[in-house]
Amino acid sequence: MKKATRQHTHNHNTQLVLKTIYDQPSISRADIARLTRLTRPTVSAIVAELMQEKLVLETGLGPSAGGKPPMLLNIDADAHRLLCVDLGSQEFRGALLNLQGEITRRAHFPTGDRRGEAALQLVYELLDELVLDGPGPVLGIGIGAPGLINPEEGLIHRAVNLGWEELPLGEQLEERYQLPVYVTNDSHLAALGEYTYGEGRAGDNLIVIRIGQGIGAGIVLGGQLYHGDGFTAGEIGHVVVSDQGERCRCGNLGCLETVAGTRALLAAARAAGVAEDWPALVEAVAAGDERARNIVAEAGCYLGVVIANLIGAFSIYHIILSGRVDQLGDVFLQAAYAEAMRRALPAMVSRTTLEYSRLGRDIVILGASALILQQELGII
Amino acid sequence: MKKATRQHTHNHNTQLVLKTIYDQPSISRADIARLTRLTRPTVSAIVAELMQEKLVLETGLGPSAGGKPPMLLNIDADAHRLLCVDLGSQEFRGALLNLQGEITRRAHFPTGDRRGEAALQLVYELLDELVLDGPGPVLGIGIGAPGLINPEEGLIHRAVNLGWEELPLGEQLEERYQLPVYVTNDSHLAALGEYTYGEGRAGDNLIVIRIGQGIGAGIVLGGQLYHGDGFTAGEIGHVVVSDQGERCRCGNLGCLETVAGTRALLAAARAAGVAEDWPALVEAVAAGDERARNIVAEAGCYLGVVIANLIGAFSIYHIILSGRVDQLGDVFLQAAYAEAMRRALPAMVSRTTLEYSRLGRDIVILGASALILQQELGII
Repeated sequence: MKKATRQHTHNHNTQLVLKTIYDQPSISRADIARLTRLTRPTVSAIVAELMQEKLVLETGLGPSAGGKPPMLLNIDADAHRLLCVDLGSQEFRGALLNLQGEITRRAHFPTGDRRGEAALQLVYELLDELVLDGPGPVLGIGIGAPGLINPEEGLIHRAVNLGWEELPLGEQLEERYQLPVYVTNDSHLAALGEYTYGEGRAGDNLIVIRIGQGIGAGIVLGGQLYHGDGFTAGEIGHVVVSDQGERCRCGNLGCLETVAGTRALLAAARAAGVAEDWPALVEAVAAGDERARNIVAEAGCYLGVVIANLIGAFSIYHIILSGRVDQLGDVFLQAAYAEAMRRALPAMVSRTTLEYSRLGRDIVILGASALILQQELGII
Repeated sequence: MKKATRQHTHNHNTQLVLKTIYDQPSISRADIARLTRLTRPTVSAIVAELMQEKLVLETGLGPSAGGKPPMLLNIDADAHRLLCVDLGSQEFRGALLNLQGEITRRAHFPTGDRRGEAALQLVYELLDELVLDGPGPVLGIGIGAPGLINPEEGLIHRAVNLGWEELPLGEQLEERYQLPVYVTNDSHLAALGEYTYGEGRAGDNLIVIRIGQGIGAGIVLGGQLYHGDGFTAGEIGHVVVSDQGERCRCGNLGCLETVAGTRALLAAARAAGVAEDWPALVEAVAAGDERARNIVAEAGCYLGVVIANLIGAFSIYHIILSGRVDQLGDVFLQAAYAEAMRRALPAMVSRTTLEYSRLGRDIVILGASALILQQELGII
């Protein structure tokens, strides 16, 4: 995979100048020289290169500091595209983004019951539709997928819901599209997305918990995605939280997914005669239905058990929840927080913020775009 | 604290050469040049400097590769001392070590009921006794202490058992001894000790769980100590594992310490009439006493609950237990492992090794020595 990167910014100084312009929009060459401690001629030469590559552009004159007013530089955000895909088990979501992480075009394909080769064909269809859309060349393809993935090799070891085993997705897409391809676990990408475009900047460390039918966490440590041995960090969906729980697809009893995932919530709501589908459950909770709120609070408590353990182990002060559970509002969030408070050192929990992501359903796509920017341009 | 370091190896190349000699004992100047890609004259000049600083010495001629036999270089391990202290709540243990981490002298002071200022005086007495012991200058002082510590400032925010609050221990010791001082949480140092001198080299990531009256974990990620926000990573002793647990000193009910710490184990053994003190409990377990083994296995199960969470969250394949629980043998270890297997993704747990440290009671002291070597010489 690494060989395929085009290394736009193979030179350390080039990368430094580009990152400076990215982090500080509308900056002059003189200010870049001051900040980077590079000489003025070096900065000018690098900027000329970056303009030729259409990564940077001049956007007008800034205020004069006495002499000639300086020309201001910005990232040429719209001259390149990032092609990002979130391979959810029910829907494949794709988007083209500019270099600022703004989505310029979308495509959604429901997966239906496609698995294995058919699911792979659907990935091709989605990418085919987006890759040809202009203007400007595509800098890279970023893919978030569920399951056990080796991001260094772009290899999907196992994605149960998509029926993939040992699928060299990165390699196949690179051959087909002749572009750098990055494939990473979707929860991990969600954490990078939140860190880059959401609440992450408050600190260097961040945990994002993605809650759908399955539950997984992504962890950013010191500004970098943490993968763990075997790339399976954040596999909290299969930590047991209920001694009376039911059998999970992993073989154990009472995993977090079986009591706090959306499928489990809905099953509990149906069994109690509270709601037949997700929107009805959301509505019942919002309307203050006591039984609905109790079901949601109980699921929140179970999540709180794992959050207590995450706080104790990682000591990370920012934890973000992502997924349509955000429609359940404070009932879910507060139950989780209160249970964490009962189950980890109160002094540590009280320093921790637990909130919903504001990035909505694009969080994995945004994370994929951040990964491309980081790997291809070094600017995240 | 950082200003106090003497920066023996402030130069990047000097550090590189020293680390090469440390990692590859009995190496020639020519081989250093080959490995580091530095020129022969540069290597010779740096080696001359390092010899003058008594960090490196010539130890004889190696086999000839045709021409003149090369002079072999090694770390001058005994020309400097590392002064390391483990401030346990019942005993302060101090040692002088050489640059290879070999202990050359020890001093143990029982703390009795000394707290606050009296405990600080005892630290001075311990250091006074060791610091004057020759031969060779002391490179630095490393301190492991229980509690909440800011290692960057050498500041002990709170060490309940020693009665210290907001104690700038690092600063005070630097003034008194005019030496670089490093103060870090004892469980964190245990992890660095294990990583450097024990089982750590098997991978880049490692978790060490220290079990005494209290329980805490140290975590090494990518070869570096991980501290977390607020430096409180690994505070697993106060994660709740038992819903029927008793009140912990932290205020919550059923924390891991209250059911799996040595005090809890002993209390259970006494209540059951199995053993009155620790040696008797160890003996009963070794003799196969069923009630003793059940008490130990139950404690192991509770530890397994937290280990399952650690595996799910960190995905680290090497977990080491440290403390006198190692005298309880396989009963404790296997109960913990079996419970972890029931409570985390079996595929992940089966890849994980759980074992006792072989470093014994010196693990924190060894970790402190590794920290000094890392910070002062850059060779760990």
